[in-house]
Amino acid sequence: MKVYAQGPVWVVSLEPGESVGDGLLEVARQHEWMAAAVWGIGALRDPVIGYYIVEEKRYIQMQLSGDWELVACHGNLSTREGEPFWHLHVVLSDREGQTRGGHLFEARVGGAGEFVVLPLPHPMVRRKDDRTGLYLLM
Amino acid sequence: MKVYAQGPVWVVSLEPGESVGDGLLEVARQHEWMAAAVWGIGALRDPVIGYYIVEEKRYIQMQLSGDWELVACHGNLSTREGEPFWHLHVVLSDREGQTRGGHLFEARVGGAGEFVVLPLPHPMVRRKDDRTGLYLLM
Amino acid sequence: MKVYAQGPVWVVSLEPGESVGDGLLEVARQHEWMAAAVWGIGALRDPVIGYYIVEEKRYIQMQLSGDWELVACHGNLSTREGEPFWHLHVVLSDREGQTRGGHLFEARVGGAGEFVVLPLPHPMVRRKDDRTGLYLLM
Repeated sequence: MKVYAQGPVWVVSLEPGESVGDGLLEVARQHEWMAAAVWGIGALRDPVIGYYIVEEKRYIQMQLSGDWELVACHGNLSTREGEPFWHLHVVLSDREGQTRGGHLFEARVGGAGEFVVLPLPHPMVRRKDDRTGLYLLM
Repeated sequence: MKVYAQGPVWVVSLEPGESVGDGLLEVARQHEWMAAAVWGIGALRDPVIGYYIVEEKRYIQMQLSGDWELVACHGNLSTREGEPFWHLHVVLSDREGQTRGGHLFEARVGGAGEFVVLPLPHPMVRRKDDRTGLYLLM
Repeated sequence: MKVYAQGPVWVVSLEPGESVGDGLLEVARQHEWMAAAVWGIGALRDPVIGYYIVEEKRYIQMQLSGDWELVACHGNLSTREGEPFWHLHVVLSDREGQTRGGHLFEARVGGAGEFVVLPLPHPMVRRKDDRTGLYLLM
């Protein structure tokens, strides 16, 4: 992992093969980020994405295999049940340019993983929302 | 709606069921934002998206029904005909991870609506462009 | 091209018909940006997108014809072989709202091209990575 401190903006370049979730948690812990906004591009290998069924209060998980371009990735860092939590959504594309998208559960970096992070000064705490079953920023 | 002031960055968490357009306009008016950049993730219910046909100078509107993951949302706040105007584009995904995208006309928040806003100090005014029929930043 | 200097944030509105790559390089050179983060929306005409095959260390290029909504565009500016280089990924949508995505090689602006740029103070240099064949930030 290579981390560029660019004043209030950070650029985090994860290594090919590195876990996106673990890598972003590691850099957050190292720099003591409590909250952040993030976006990124690159490529993901074997990503697991999800769709949340509100009525059933559960995620469908989808395992995609192989290498995908990471054509959009956004989210934020907050605290959930006392732990740092990156909430990330992604759009992926294949060799025909066809796309898939969803909530990101996990993935390894494919060829590149380039993330822009804006660390935020105040914690944001997620709380369980009984209507949706989700941990929301509220 | 829950709004986190994070120095030059704001995080706006809209409630399930809240209108995205109305919610973002309300927070812009409350905080007197004249211009801003925004991105977000979450989920949308019954979104109306569009595609602009330049030659015909009109949008095709598409009503999508049900709940969609909001896997990418970007745009900006400017002034159009004297009124604050959020120009937003979205990518949405369904329970198979299939995606749709376009200009966002309107939608309600599904399970979550988490937006990062960078308020900008100077107004940006859209003007009608005769070539395209669009109100552009120029 | 219209450029709004908004403190640490810039908004670059490219003209219909203008090259995205050339336009963003021109504004970077004018303002002496060595590194930056960017995102944008708008519409692209005749975009060329790509998918990188890591095992073969080469891109597949795909020429898409006509006008596409630019529903997500992200990336960064760095230095590659001594030259400024914008690394951009895009998601595009057509008149049915169907999406395509990939690495952006080139495109002209369709109806609008609205980019938000965060110039960064320190250069970021890409180096050839032998494992992947890519120029990475490392």
